[in-house]
Amino acid sequence: MQNYSSRLLEEAVNELTRLPGIGRRSAVRLVLHLLRQDSSRSEALGNAILKLRSNIRYCKRCHNISDDDICSICNDNKRDNTLVCVVEDIRDVMAIENTGQFRGLYHVLGGIISPMDGVGPNDLNIESLIDRIDNEDINEVIMALPATTEGDTTNYYLFKKIKDKITTISTISRGVAIGDELEFADEITLGKSITNRIPYEKLND
Amino acid sequence: MQNYSSRLLEEAVNELTRLPGIGRRSAVRLVLHLLRQDSSRSEALGNAILKLRSNIRYCKRCHNISDDDICSICNDNKRDNTLVCVVEDIRDVMAIENTGQFRGLYHVLGGIISPMDGVGPNDLNIESLIDRIDNEDINEVIMALPATTEGDTTNYYLFKKIKDKITTISTISRGVAIGDELEFADEITLGKSITNRIPYEKLND
Repeated sequence: MQNYSSRLLEEAVNELTRLPGIGRRSAVRLVLHLLRQDSSRSEALGNAILKLRSNIRYCKRCHNISDDDICSICNDNKRDNTLVCVVEDIRDVMAIENTGQFRGLYHVLGGIISPMDGVGPNDLNIESLIDRIDNEDINEVIMALPATTEGDTTNYYLFKKIKDKITTISTISRGVAIGDELEFADEITLGKSITNRIPYEKLND
Repeated sequence: MQNYSSRLLEEAVNELTRLPGIGRRSAVRLVLHLLRQDSSRSEALGNAILKLRSNIRYCKRCHNISDDDICSICNDNKRDNTLVCVVEDIRDVMAIENTGQFRGLYHVLGGIISPMDGVGPNDLNIESLIDRIDNEDINEVIMALPATTEGDTTNYYLFKKIKDKITTISTISRGVAIGDELEFADEITLGKSITNRIPYEKLND
């Protein structure tokens, strides 16, 4: 049991401890930090959180987080709109954007098929992917889903759904990470990186 | 560099990363968590943070955080107002209150003397402590400051300031923690626990 001399303090601590990875002790530390800072900092944080949830939208085309009906990536006419990369959530969009290596568009599923968590195909943005394939001029769909059982299941489900509609379906390569020693790679990854080896002439830098 | 498809998302992430111990990756995780939750959760968090900073007050008597001019501890007439425990900040008030072993009042210094951090006696609530000693009916002042050089400096400074004004000045005992083996205690702590040994007849449970 914690004793708080202030209800306002208690409320702020309680709300912060609802966030993942923030315990009561960290929450108290965060609150005391906010109280020591200029009040404009707390205002900026509080307002950013309020505006985030009330104003944010999802792109009607790719389901990426957006401030408008169509996100800045879909709206960028310098990007290749014949190439669509299918990802689990917007963190993956950010991760791929950070590489600077992809100039196509995305499709955010909003999760992956996971019977254990009660997530089935109907809970994901799959119908809208098929709509896009039917109506847009897409040449290639790249699957960039996690290398887990759930990711593989979702890959397979999508592959069956779209294989007759699209010329090229590819998946991101798996293998030994750049900079890693072979001896430290796990056997399955190392095995995949051998069976899915890439001929030199097909290697892109 | 991070790429955000939404300015609202970017603002929320930026504000969260200003908090101590929260990096960019954690901030994105927290924001996505808020977006997945019901909007009432984000509203409660945002409002708690806004209200905290704009409405919170400090007790005019002991400088503890309070919703009113005088905090609930100072206002509790079941507590012993002849006994005052001097602490560094409100986290210490909470920690001592959680023990359930102290029924006196507090005085929150708001820091300790630390020349390295540019904190001198004038930055702390020391004048108001002397005012209390002069005007209230205090029999004993307990120093509960950290067992660090800064804590010792502050202890010594306060002792000199108040020693002629008050009958009993005490300090919390230092020693081997309950449940700890002697061999694992550091030498200084173990040494202090021997030189400051307590006769059986004076031991309180």
